[in-house]
Amino acid sequence: MTSSRLEAFSDGVLAVIITVMVLELHVPHGDSVQALWDATGVGLLTYLLSFVYVGIYWSNHHHMFQVAEHVDGAVLWANLHLLFWLSLFPFSTAWVDESGVARTPAVVYGVNLLAAAVAYYLLQLAIFRTTGGDRLRSALGGDWKGKLSPVFYLSGIGLAFVEPWLAEVCYVAVAMIWLVPDRRVERYLAAERGGSTG
Amino acid sequence: MTSSRLEAFSDGVLAVIITVMVLELHVPHGDSVQALWDATGVGLLTYLLSFVYVGIYWSNHHHMFQVAEHVDGAVLWANLHLLFWLSLFPFSTAWVDESGVARTPAVVYGVNLLAAAVAYYLLQLAIFRTTGGDRLRSALGGDWKGKLSPVFYLSGIGLAFVEPWLAEVCYVAVAMIWLVPDRRVERYLAAERGGSTG
Amino acid sequence: MTSSRLEAFSDGVLAVIITVMVLELHVPHGDSVQALWDATGVGLLTYLLSFVYVGIYWSNHHHMFQVAEHVDGAVLWANLHLLFWLSLFPFSTAWVDESGVARTPAVVYGVNLLAAAVAYYLLQLAIFRTTGGDRLRSALGGDWKGKLSPVFYLSGIGLAFVEPWLAEVCYVAVAMIWLVPDRRVERYLAAERGGSTG
Amino acid sequence: MTSSRLEAFSDGVLAVIITVMVLELHVPHGDSVQALWDATGVGLLTYLLSFVYVGIYWSNHHHMFQVAEHVDGAVLWANLHLLFWLSLFPFSTAWVDESGVARTPAVVYGVNLLAAAVAYYLLQLAIFRTTGGDRLRSALGGDWKGKLSPVFYLSGIGLAFVEPWLAEVCYVAVAMIWLVPDRRVERYLAAERGGSTG
Repeated sequence: MTSSRLEAFSDGVLAVIITVMVLELHVPHGDSVQALWDATGVGLLTYLLSFVYVGIYWSNHHHMFQVAEHVDGAVLWANLHLLFWLSLFPFSTAWVDESGVARTPAVVYGVNLLAAAVAYYLLQLAIFRTTGGDRLRSALGGDWKGKLSPVFYLSGIGLAFVEPWLAEVCYVAVAMIWLVPDRRVERYLAAERGGSTG
Repeated sequence: MTSSRLEAFSDGVLAVIITVMVLELHVPHGDSVQALWDATGVGLLTYLLSFVYVGIYWSNHHHMFQVAEHVDGAVLWANLHLLFWLSLFPFSTAWVDESGVARTPAVVYGVNLLAAAVAYYLLQLAIFRTTGGDRLRSALGGDWKGKLSPVFYLSGIGLAFVEPWLAEVCYVAVAMIWLVPDRRVERYLAAERGGSTG
Repeated sequence: MTSSRLEAFSDGVLAVIITVMVLELHVPHGDSVQALWDATGVGLLTYLLSFVYVGIYWSNHHHMFQVAEHVDGAVLWANLHLLFWLSLFPFSTAWVDESGVARTPAVVYGVNLLAAAVAYYLLQLAIFRTTGGDRLRSALGGDWKGKLSPVFYLSGIGLAFVEPWLAEVCYVAVAMIWLVPDRRVERYLAAERGGSTG
Repeated sequence: MTSSRLEAFSDGVLAVIITVMVLELHVPHGDSVQALWDATGVGLLTYLLSFVYVGIYWSNHHHMFQVAEHVDGAVLWANLHLLFWLSLFPFSTAWVDESGVARTPAVVYGVNLLAAAVAYYLLQLAIFRTTGGDRLRSALGGDWKGKLSPVFYLSGIGLAFVEPWLAEVCYVAVAMIWLVPDRRVERYLAAERGGSTG
């Protein structure tokens, strides 16, 4: 089985998630800058953060399936499991926003991020087991970003009990780490091509 | 006619259905765990169940069109008929949720599941009739899951009149049966390749 | 330019339109069959009708681009023009529904159908002009369905001033005409293949 | 890396954006033409304008990636950056509409258009740097439309302080400029084919 339809479906789900979140931004009641700020101040920031997270997942997903082209039933379900947690982003984002970054919503947002990270890790494991999965394992190498992220999420969840905004700082930090372009897959594919031609 | 655009359109519709359901989860009124529970207690469970059902349909649909690559007008409309019933999932899911699993909504949810199963069966029949449809027939074999599911749905609909939660148990049971990976198509394709090479 | 991305984008838009309409179905206030009927009685019928219309447009669009594989700027915009009118279906459907099939909404729904039909016709003309457009012209032949539909839409708009339900009958009649599978393109492609091989 | 999945994801996001905007059109309270006008008078115009803008971006995006087929991490993120600003169109469109074209919303709408134009320009720059990016540079040539648009957006933002409707006139003017089909890419590809065959 090729991965093309799995990618198409995932693209569709991620495209809807990333766009549906904007529906949670309330149109301001009034015409002033103040009304805009009241309606979207925190909302726009949490929207931006969640948009970046979905973007990161899409980008990583895209890279992962560039290397792993064969999928089986386990990969299908590991992928749906990941999409499930990502599909809750609009909900947990909206709650953080509407509560004005309160403690429980900040914890729940962190748990959602953590669950998505775990689901992504399980998807990697499922691909490792398919034929050709070794290529992905070689391409990813040490994967320090993947190992560091859960530590930050857990720190964020813990810090939310002290001050919810500190949790958001942790979540933003992880996004920053991933925003730095990840060239492992590109380098691996380039090396592979180099090896086969040279 | 190839099936690629039919698959792309179906992927799009299923991707929207699966994501639109999360819009029915209400953002909690308040910042506490209690508020989260009040807002989503049952909602999250019904959301999860419907997410799994759409995932099962996507996965089966994907497998089916791996074997059946030629489509005609009858297949197009049988497919749209299936998508119609699946598109009502967000509605019937929301009603079960908002009613706190009351009797009529549990019956309607079961009828929706049953109608989708019948539509899926009709789609299979439509594919059987196309050129190359025999391949799908061979791949599916006895199809005991497809035959057992309607029995469970009907039992669920009946049990809803005794106790709505028993209906939900039936619906969850069917989902569990399908979650066990279905290797018929994969095995068939592997055997076919084996036969043609050996 | 090939038509593949135009088809993918159109599929995406049609998939969202067809699914977004279900969001206009209100979850019943109450757990009874009566509440379901109050909330969705007319709504479910108008939803079904609009679902069928979007399905017809998708199916015809799919057939049309099977024959016409080359697109230019004029085709791109003629296609966006068609998608614009189709994107208003959720709005005009919801108004017919919420008004309980009143006169003005029934007229507006008919105007929307008529505008979409005109846009589809303009898209056909734009494709006729591209290289290879003659193939589509040959495949479509007399196109009596395309010529009859506007007559029915105009009759529906006129009859809405007498009795809005009569307008709906006209709109349903057109849908029935198109539901009968349209084999022109399939036959044409089969004949073409036959001609080139025999 | 090929651009096909980036295009598919962008198509998905743009398809959702263009369709989600229609959800902001409120169903009229009443059955009369007056009620329709009250509910959608300005709304339909702003919807049409935003629909045309998303159509223009889709069409340009489509042309751009016809020439630039190789993408790297920088292109991925430049593309997501563009999608972010486009995803705010439903929000800023709804605010212009609900405020009845007031000053601040008209300014915010212009800022949104300007930000999208800047993001599009950055995406072009990112593609110029990839292997094969020179082809896009040659195809685009002087790009006077791309240079003129920001001037109009800034004029619109300025004029909004005098009279918000003048801002809308500027935004409509830019849309008109782009609606005239842009044949640069088509001509370039035709010339390239001509050059390689003749």
